[in-house]
Formats: sequence, structure tokens, C-alpha cells
Amino acid sequence: MSIDTFTITDNHRLNLPSIDMPPRILLGAGPSNSAPRVLAAMLAPTVGHLDPTFLQVMGEVSELLRYAWQTDNEYTIAISGTGSSGMEAAFANVVEPGDRVLVGVNGYFGRRMVDMAGRYGADVRCLETTWGAAFSPEELRAGMEAHRPRVLALVHAETSTGVRQPLEGLAELCREHDCLLLVDTVTSLGGVPLYADAWGLDVAYSGSQKCLSSPSGLAPITFGPRALDKIRNRKTPIANWYMNSELLGKYWFGSPRAYHHTAPMHLFYALREGLRLAAEEGLAARWARHQAVAERLWAGLGELGLEPHVPLEIRLPSLTTVRVPAGVDAAAVSRRLLTEYNIEIAGGLGDLAGKVWRVGLMGYNARPESVAVLLRALADVL
Amino acid sequence: MSIDTFTITDNHRLNLPSIDMPPRILLGAGPSNSAPRVLAAMLAPTVGHLDPTFLQVMGEVSELLRYAWQTDNEYTIAISGTGSSGMEAAFANVVEPGDRVLVGVNGYFGRRMVDMAGRYGADVRCLETTWGAAFSPEELRAGMEAHRPRVLALVHAETSTGVRQPLEGLAELCREHDCLLLVDTVTSLGGVPLYADAWGLDVAYSGSQKCLSSPSGLAPITFGPRALDKIRNRKTPIANWYMNSELLGKYWFGSPRAYHHTAPMHLFYALREGLRLAAEEGLAARWARHQAVAERLWAGLGELGLEPHVPLEIRLPSLTTVRVPAGVDAAAVSRRLLTEYNIEIAGGLGDLAGKVWRVGLMGYNARPESVAVLLRALADVL
Repeated sequence: MSIDTFTITDNHRLNLPSIDMPPRILLGAGPSNSAPRVLAAMLAPTVGHLDPTFLQVMGEVSELLRYAWQTDNEYTIAISGTGSSGMEAAFANVVEPGDRVLVGVNGYFGRRMVDMAGRYGADVRCLETTWGAAFSPEELRAGMEAHRPRVLALVHAETSTGVRQPLEGLAELCREHDCLLLVDTVTSLGGVPLYADAWGLDVAYSGSQKCLSSPSGLAPITFGPRALDKIRNRKTPIANWYMNSELLGKYWFGSPRAYHHTAPMHLFYALREGLRLAAEEGLAARWARHQAVAERLWAGLGELGLEPHVPLEIRLPSLTTVRVPAGVDAAAVSRRLLTEYNIEIAGGLGDLAGKVWRVGLMGYNARPESVAVLLRALADVL
Repeated sequence: MSIDTFTITDNHRLNLPSIDMPPRILLGAGPSNSAPRVLAAMLAPTVGHLDPTFLQVMGEVSELLRYAWQTDNEYTIAISGTGSSGMEAAFANVVEPGDRVLVGVNGYFGRRMVDMAGRYGADVRCLETTWGAAFSPEELRAGMEAHRPRVLALVHAETSTGVRQPLEGLAELCREHDCLLLVDTVTSLGGVPLYADAWGLDVAYSGSQKCLSSPSGLAPITFGPRALDKIRNRKTPIANWYMNSELLGKYWFGSPRAYHHTAPMHLFYALREGLRLAAEEGLAARWARHQAVAERLWAGLGELGLEPHVPLEIRLPSLTTVRVPAGVDAAAVSRRLLTEYNIEIAGGLGDLAGKVWRVGLMGYNARPESVAVLLRALADVL
């Protein structure tokens, strides 16, 4: 061994203190704070990625994700990356070069879909509307007829605008056009009413760090039978290895289970606990809790003279965009909340930069005390 | 909100107990056990992915990775995925469709490189040798002259065979041919002598869960100036969004820092502590510790009549392949070690399936007590 052939330099040998992070109250666009039970579960002992005990955890995560999504899809897993990797996994697997993909763009994440679909060679068409509006069934039908896409991609819960896109009735429209329905549920899964099978979603993905009260780093994803058919009949290989549904399928469901990557087991322990909390609470109670807490926030904002950006009927409970009053420096307010109160809220993204704040009440943080501390601190700062 | 429009089904509403994982001693091919200080650091409070305190953690991780790799490369980051995502990030960024890529295939991970490079449109050529051998400088020179590639891809520490590929002198060869040197250091970074700059590596990547004593889920990667030049001069967009070095660069180094994805902050806290432990110990001591502990293992295996598969001069200290004696059921031995002693060792992969066991002594687990418990348990079981 040639330890002595070269000289080790200490140029970058930092001498650091122990980690010491501030106790933030995360009321922004995500991550949200994890539930204490989730953090405790994360420290269960490390086992191998093919250990029988870990394969069981994977199966439990699959099954509880099916509950959260209200789906019977066998192919329901978590990608070992963040929510954005879920979006990429969705497009990488179902899109072939030249496939026409119609994306509903009414916010930042719709734009990101356009970018990603393009990288996989899609013939991308956009249906656009205002940041703060949703698409009507008529607009979607007209778009489908004008573009005749193979994939319709929509964001159920636009984290950049706080808009809930209604999805009821689209399954029929997509089936008429032999088109897949691909939906971003990053900011809805576990907090906002969502029925993947009843709504006929063919592909949906999410993130662990929002309404599921777990740390960031896993991207739940589910593929229905129509999506799996399209993948099986691809003429070109899936142009991605790490998020490849065929290779991942052999790891998640193969017999014997085949090594693909070294799953981040501690994040899986955490997500299992986050999902277990959701199952204990039950979706009806959980969705109602998110709604009730959001209504407290909206009432309180009104008392402060602040106005939500999105009309009530399409307003997300998990993420509220709040209009910045004229003459107020949005960034300065966020900064004071962070530095004086340890409260994180998010600023506007894209078209809404500087125009709104974004307030998330997700999962463990969807509690009255989150609203109380934020409203009082906002009143102090404004 | 249409909570009542559909009926929530409880089909998949599992009622699970608390997580309860067995206390494995992970002496396989990785993951390895994390150091206790790393697990403690992982539970520091969650902050946002653009929180100033988190940006500082990212900077510290970059700097300590530079120390571990012995590189001055500014572009030194961790991808938010496992080691395999590091491999994909390397190829996705530097390979354009049609680029000739020469891969040294002497094990499973060389084969994986062939697969990944192909998915990004490379004209892949293979240089092959036995699983258990390394490539000689003459073989590499002949391969470079025969194929004249834009990228030479080698595995420094082949986790499937336990071979250490010598890399000294290749920088000059690659520069003569205007070729990038791309190296897998998953099972060497932090445990095996490695001088990225002195050896002229243009791209190197690793995983957090091996010699860095951290949980799985992050893939350190470093791009040198020649690799960044090739990326800047691409004629085609990088066909990957999540692992895109340009977009990631704006998050890691931009001014202001631009949102890309919601980094898994708890894994970053953990990796920071794993790297801090390496900096405290110092690379010279750390490499010597891995070597000394491996030598104990090799001596003990000899006493049991067991033989390492790889010649001493190219044998990795971090991962030893042990030949399965004639008449012994390799899988049965592994299973008994796991179920009776909570010890995980790995079986052979690919060409070596059933022919070897793989014993890892990495990071925190590179200690005399790991060797002692394994040797005694092996003696009992055989």
C-alpha cells in the first residue's frame, strides 16, 4: 500500500465543533418538522439492504403508502431520493423520446415538469393559466383535444401557489384519449383528500418531508396498471438507471430480491413511522385536522389584514400563499421571523417571488400551536 | 373539500408495532455500522434546505470531502441519493451521446458502469480482465491506444471482488489522449489511500455508508477542472435533472443559493459528523487502521484454512473476498452468521456468486473486535 508515496495535505482538514442546529419551527413550503416518534424510529439499528428484516420494512412501507394514496397498485414504492427524484422517476419511466406530454403549468412545479419531460425527449406541450388558478374540466378537455398527448401531467398541490387542482373526472377523459394521468402529490399525500384509484391516477409521486411528517430523502411513487403497460411496451430503454422502475421492481418485488442500490434504511424506518402515524390517525381525521388548522390560519390572517392569494374553493390546507401588503419587504419579514422567532416561512417562487409568503401546515406541524405562534409573531413583526 | 365524495377504504391500513430492528454487526459489502457520534448527530433539529445554518453545513461537508479525497476541486458536493446515484451523476454529466467511453470491467461495478454509460448514449468499449485481477499500466495504455476514448472509467475499489486498482500514472496517459479519468471510490474513500489530485482524477464519487461511517443515502462526488470544462462545452443538455451538475452547482455554490431539491438534512448532519471523525483521526492514521485490522482478518482466516481471493499487492483492506472451501454451502454459512450471531457478511456477486464471501471492515467497523467476533463465529459455524 502506497501510503507514503504521496504526502497527505491538511489544507481542507477543518476542525469543527459538534453540530448545533437551531430549533426551527418549519412553517414554510417544506421540509416540515418530523414527528418525535419518527425521529426516534430513525435511530433503530442499521441492517443490510437485503436483510430479511429490512425487506419486511420495505413491504410495510409499500402497504401503508397504498393506504395513504388509497390505491391497490402493487407497484407502490419509495425512491431513494427527495420528492424531485419522484418527479423525475415518473417522467423517466413513462416517457419515450417523441411522446407528446401535455403539462398543466400554473406554478413552479409545472414548469419543472416541462423541464424534466424535455430532458427525456418528450414533445412537450403546455397548458398555462395564472399562478393562483386551477384548470377547469373544460380547459383540460380542450387541451386534450388540441394536443392529443400520451401523458397528461398535473400538479395536485402546487407548492408554489397553494392551489389544489381538482382531479375528479379526468380519468375518463384520459382513457378516452389513451393517455396516462401523471400527478404530483408532493404537498397533498397524507394531508389533503386524495383518491389515487377512484380518480384514476396512473402515476403519482410525493415526498416524505411534508404531510407525512418524516425527514426529507425519500420519494414515494406509485405506478398503476396502465402506466406499467406503457413501460413494458417501451421501444427504447429507460434512460435512467437509479430511478429505473424495472430494476427497482426486482429489488422491491423480485423473487429472490435483487440488489439494486443500498437503500437509506434509516430514512425508511422514519417513513414507516410517519405512515404508521397516518394509519393510526386515519385519513378522514387527518385530512379534517389539516383543514381545521388551515381555517384557523386563514381566520387569523384576516384579523391581521392579510389576504390569501388563492380562492377558498381551490385553496390547499397544507400550503397557504399570503399576499404581501403593499410597502412591506417580504424578505425582511421572513428574515425576522427566522432570526427572532426561529419560525421558517417561505417566500414566493417564480411569478410570485416577492408577492406572497408561503405558509405550510403539514403533518406533525398541522397543529393549533403552530398557527398561534406564527400569528402572534407575524403581528409583532408587521 | 370533497372528503365525503368518495369512501376511504381501510384495505391497506396496516396496524403495525413499533419498529424493532436486530442489532446487526455489519461486516458485509456495506452498509457498515455508523459511528455512535454520527447517529447522535443525525438527530440535530430539522432546518430548511436554504436555512443559513444548513448552507453552512453543506459548506463544511464540501470542505471535509476535499480533505478525504485530497483534492482542491471546488466542485465537491454530495448528491442526495446513494452511492449508485453518484455513479449515475458522474456519467450523466460528462457523457454526451456518441462519446466513446472505455470502462475497465473486472467486477460487478464495472459492468454497472457499462450499463449506465450506455443509457446516456455513450459508445461504450470494455477492457476486461478476471474478477480478482487489476489492470496493469500496460493493459490500460494498450486499451487507450486501441479505443481512444473521451472518458476512461475505472473502479478504484471493486466491492464485488476486493481488488484495489492502482491509479498512479494514469493522469498522464489520460491527458495525452485528451480523455477524462472517472473513478469509483465507493469502497475506498476514507479507508484506503486515495489522492484524487495527485492521481489526476477528473471525476470521483463515493457513498456515505462505507468507510465514512455514516448512514446510506448520500453520494459524495467531485468534478475537477477538466471535467467541468467538458460539461460546460456540452452540445446536448444533461439528460438528467436530479443529478444535473449545473442545477446542483447553483444550489451548492450559487449567489444567491438557488433552490434545487429539498436536501435530506439529517443525512447531511450525519455525514458531516462522519467526515469530522475522519478529520480528527487524520487520513494517515485512518488508512493505517484499516490496513492493520484487515491484516488481522487475513491472518485469522489463514488459521481457519480460508484463503483470500485477491493477491496481497492489490487486495483492498476495506473489503476482503474469501474463497468458499469445496463442499461448503456459502449461503448457509452466511445465514447462520446472521441468524445465530447477528453478523452480516455478503455473498459473491456476478462471476463470483457462490464462490466467495465478502467481508467488509469499513470506517467505524474497522476495529479489532469486529475481526474477533467474526473469526470466532466463523470457526463455530464452519
